[in-house]
Amino acid sequence: MRVALAQLNYHIGNFESNTAKVIRAIRQARENGAELVLFAELAVSGYPPRDFLEFDDFIDRCYRSLETIARECTDIAAIIGSPSRNPGNKGKPLFNTAFFLYHGKIEDMRHKTLLPTYDVFDEYRYFEPNRLFNLLEFKGKRLALTICEDLWIEGTHPLYTLDPMEELIKQEPDIMINIAASPFHYSQAETRLKVLKANVLKYRLPVVYVNHVGAQTELLFDGGSLAMNKEGDVINSLRFFGEDMGFVNLEEDNQLINKEISSNKGGIIQIPEKISLIHDALVMGIQDYFGKLGFSKAVIGLSGGIDSALVLVLAAKALGADNVLSVLMPSAFSSDHSVNDALALVENLSSPYEKIPIEDIFQQFNQSLSPVFKGLPFNLAEENIQARVRAVILMALSNKMGYILLNTSNKSEAAVGYGTLYGDMCGAISVLGDVYKTEVYELAGFINKDRVVIPENILLKPPSAELRPDQKDSDSLPDYAILDQILYQYIEKRKGPDDLLAMGFDKDTVLKTLKMVNTSEHKRYQTPPVLRVSPKAFGMGRRMPIVAKYLS
Amino acid sequence: MRVALAQLNYHIGNFESNTAKVIRAIRQARENGAELVLFAELAVSGYPPRDFLEFDDFIDRCYRSLETIARECTDIAAIIGSPSRNPGNKGKPLFNTAFFLYHGKIEDMRHKTLLPTYDVFDEYRYFEPNRLFNLLEFKGKRLALTICEDLWIEGTHPLYTLDPMEELIKQEPDIMINIAASPFHYSQAETRLKVLKANVLKYRLPVVYVNHVGAQTELLFDGGSLAMNKEGDVINSLRFFGEDMGFVNLEEDNQLINKEISSNKGGIIQIPEKISLIHDALVMGIQDYFGKLGFSKAVIGLSGGIDSALVLVLAAKALGADNVLSVLMPSAFSSDHSVNDALALVENLSSPYEKIPIEDIFQQFNQSLSPVFKGLPFNLAEENIQARVRAVILMALSNKMGYILLNTSNKSEAAVGYGTLYGDMCGAISVLGDVYKTEVYELAGFINKDRVVIPENILLKPPSAELRPDQKDSDSLPDYAILDQILYQYIEKRKGPDDLLAMGFDKDTVLKTLKMVNTSEHKRYQTPPVLRVSPKAFGMGRRMPIVAKYLS
Repeated sequence: MRVALAQLNYHIGNFESNTAKVIRAIRQARENGAELVLFAELAVSGYPPRDFLEFDDFIDRCYRSLETIARECTDIAAIIGSPSRNPGNKGKPLFNTAFFLYHGKIEDMRHKTLLPTYDVFDEYRYFEPNRLFNLLEFKGKRLALTICEDLWIEGTHPLYTLDPMEELIKQEPDIMINIAASPFHYSQAETRLKVLKANVLKYRLPVVYVNHVGAQTELLFDGGSLAMNKEGDVINSLRFFGEDMGFVNLEEDNQLINKEISSNKGGIIQIPEKISLIHDALVMGIQDYFGKLGFSKAVIGLSGGIDSALVLVLAAKALGADNVLSVLMPSAFSSDHSVNDALALVENLSSPYEKIPIEDIFQQFNQSLSPVFKGLPFNLAEENIQARVRAVILMALSNKMGYILLNTSNKSEAAVGYGTLYGDMCGAISVLGDVYKTEVYELAGFINKDRVVIPENILLKPPSAELRPDQKDSDSLPDYAILDQILYQYIEKRKGPDDLLAMGFDKDTVLKTLKMVNTSEHKRYQTPPVLRVSPKAFGMGRRMPIVAKYLS
Repeated sequence: MRVALAQLNYHIGNFESNTAKVIRAIRQARENGAELVLFAELAVSGYPPRDFLEFDDFIDRCYRSLETIARECTDIAAIIGSPSRNPGNKGKPLFNTAFFLYHGKIEDMRHKTLLPTYDVFDEYRYFEPNRLFNLLEFKGKRLALTICEDLWIEGTHPLYTLDPMEELIKQEPDIMINIAASPFHYSQAETRLKVLKANVLKYRLPVVYVNHVGAQTELLFDGGSLAMNKEGDVINSLRFFGEDMGFVNLEEDNQLINKEISSNKGGIIQIPEKISLIHDALVMGIQDYFGKLGFSKAVIGLSGGIDSALVLVLAAKALGADNVLSVLMPSAFSSDHSVNDALALVENLSSPYEKIPIEDIFQQFNQSLSPVFKGLPFNLAEENIQARVRAVILMALSNKMGYILLNTSNKSEAAVGYGTLYGDMCGAISVLGDVYKTEVYELAGFINKDRVVIPENILLKPPSAELRPDQKDSDSLPDYAILDQILYQYIEKRKGPDDLLAMGFDKDTVLKTLKMVNTSEHKRYQTPPVLRVSPKAFGMGRRMPIVAKYLS
């Protein structure tokens, strides 16, 4: 049996385009001799549809799309994910379902058993878990059909009390199929390979895994769909960060092979290194944010610092250098090198820029506020006015010209609240909000590896917000090398103060850092969605109370 | 057996203050002859602790608090909610638990079975559901101990396949106890009464129900703890929107009575009308936001319109009129009546104000932007600059003086995106973000019912943003009377376009409205938390994709 893996980039709620895309892929699979074509989890609606799932109208449209797609499945069968209605009179109103389309109609379906409800996942919010286990038979083959998390049982303390493959294996399947919506983070590709291989070796069955690709606001999907023979060798693997289709054959003896390659032994997958993955993920994240919303042009405030420099380069790669407008907004506290470094960068990229000094506006604010401020000394208020004036200018350009503002804050700043709300924390999407400052430097180094794009001086000078004379980040924050380690342990690893002290970090630094993180929750609440590249990003995957008193 | 109901206002993560408060209540209960005192669900940590639950350190602190509280429970027993660790090697790492404290230690515990995971609730994100059902015995009485949702089985299509009371009833309990964290919305008090009564009549058992009171950022808890005899009469009910303690006695014959009243028949609960409930909830919401974060002073932009007028009055009630600074920021497009109406209001309240005209700053922006705008006509960009200049001024006052900015947007505006991001959509907390414009008028009428506080002219004039000459809300939006009905059906009732047309709404108006709602998701994402007073508020209870194409 020849099987096609269709790795597509869906658009949430855009039934017309998703359906058309699926039908094109079915035709392509048929032309390549496939008898069965596999699509991802909730492909019909796009993933995650979130609370659109609560609208009957939305579910009706899913069914209508399924019927349209099924009409294409006459001489070829398809397995595709969609929500389905729970026909029972108890439990959540929907299932997360893999539909089997054949003979021009919906022939069968299997529901997802394990519903991830942690981090960025909310599946139990919508779906009832499956409790019935049956193989799917097609052309004499017995398929163990699972959906994403169903195969994702890890470690010695699994999150679930049930294991769907333990049920299905009793019925002696020939192959495991997993249709997934498995969001990217920088170690996900490796984990995925490990998890799939553990299943293959445990059950002595080949597996075919089909994932989403593309960005859905903050969630990035890297693709990386693959097939593994029963020895655990990857015999076909699809592109990272792009649409793709691949084929494998399930033989009479239930060997899974790749007819297009000479050897079916091992290793035709190369997982790029972490920084390269993050780079590609961020470029895709920007591209899809703009593409799916119908925008083409971005604007950023280019300060001469490393964060905005990196965002500019990534945006230029995603949208084309011509389509990213940099705005230089020097103040009286801006150093000469800030402007010069920024100019050198836009020259390197041949991308457009404008220079709009903020001094006159800033002084006008000071004057208008003086009757109320009554000579109180310069402090945070005036620092923030400058950052906010820049935001007003950027948003004015956005409103006037249709540019979309990209946020340039990094994860370290966002974590400790070192940024101005309604100032530099503005933007439609945060490009670096899940990238620690030390990783920002690594990314800049990665970009410069063949040719200096980002001027060396930007990488070398000490970070500064330049909102008062001679300000340096290090006046207010621990060294980023230390800070980022503490943040990583606290945010990604959920280590408490005692754990951190036991690791050897300085007590004052730890307590100060955790307090800064917890008391700036109110700021992060109002910031743009963050392109997620780590296992624990700010946003939908990290839900904290604002009014609380814990380590604060 | 004499039972105390302790209805307290907890502070999330503030173990010291929560523990001290619980211990004071235990002493008060003892002094009043109680043998058992009941506290709310997750009282020890405060509710909802959200992802703090993922920190071992946080759970350790819960256990330490429980031990401290247990030491107080020598001659009196307590039932109190706290997270507990799942000792098994499968499933979620925690249970949502009711601890039974007696003899100075943790004597027993019961876990929550039904874990709400919808709307504002995320309980399955953290907790493993209970699967073991046993009564708790105390002083010869058999207690069916449940936690909130466990008793909350409604309608003909329950969300759960299991019903814990159906299990517990088999063991012949004498009374039902329910400790809850049941957030307020305007019909919650009535629903609660109905649900409890349905259980009482179904199982022919009395019930004692103890809820939280107080605000936790967006979630408001109205209290309203109560006891019901087995005929379904409310025999004791605690305050709405305030801490309180009450007592009931479970007699030898298992009648639940209130010794403090002469009759134990029916109806000692008066649920205030909807607008009165919303009013009190909002005042409490402001009060606790400030109180729990240690702030005392607020600032608002007072436009002369009804929304900011109402927020000022509510804030003055919550914080004291002296503690709310109004800032009038007229522009060239502001009408005389705007300033005069605003001044009349602050005079009525004897609350402080400042007047800071924005014209000079606005003109300076226009001048600085003119080389880039190159004479393009006045449009949304200039409208938004004005709104954003006001935000910069308000935030400057906040930063300089320590005032906290209150947001004044209403739910109708927030729904259709009729507001300026980083402008009038700013603020630490949104007071009216869950109050439709038509309800804003009702609230203003409620406030004015005995004495005109909000000048009549503010209630009478047509709503306007005053960002261009002669602008009216009705230039861009359907009449609020129609708009609010469509929004209610779409947001609260999840009705789709076909349903709305079938209800008789105009097609163009419906399609335009739904499109405005769906395409302004990106704005709402970056706005402050909203005090929740309806069954479906923007924020944590309504989770929508930003990059999507559905009814848009």
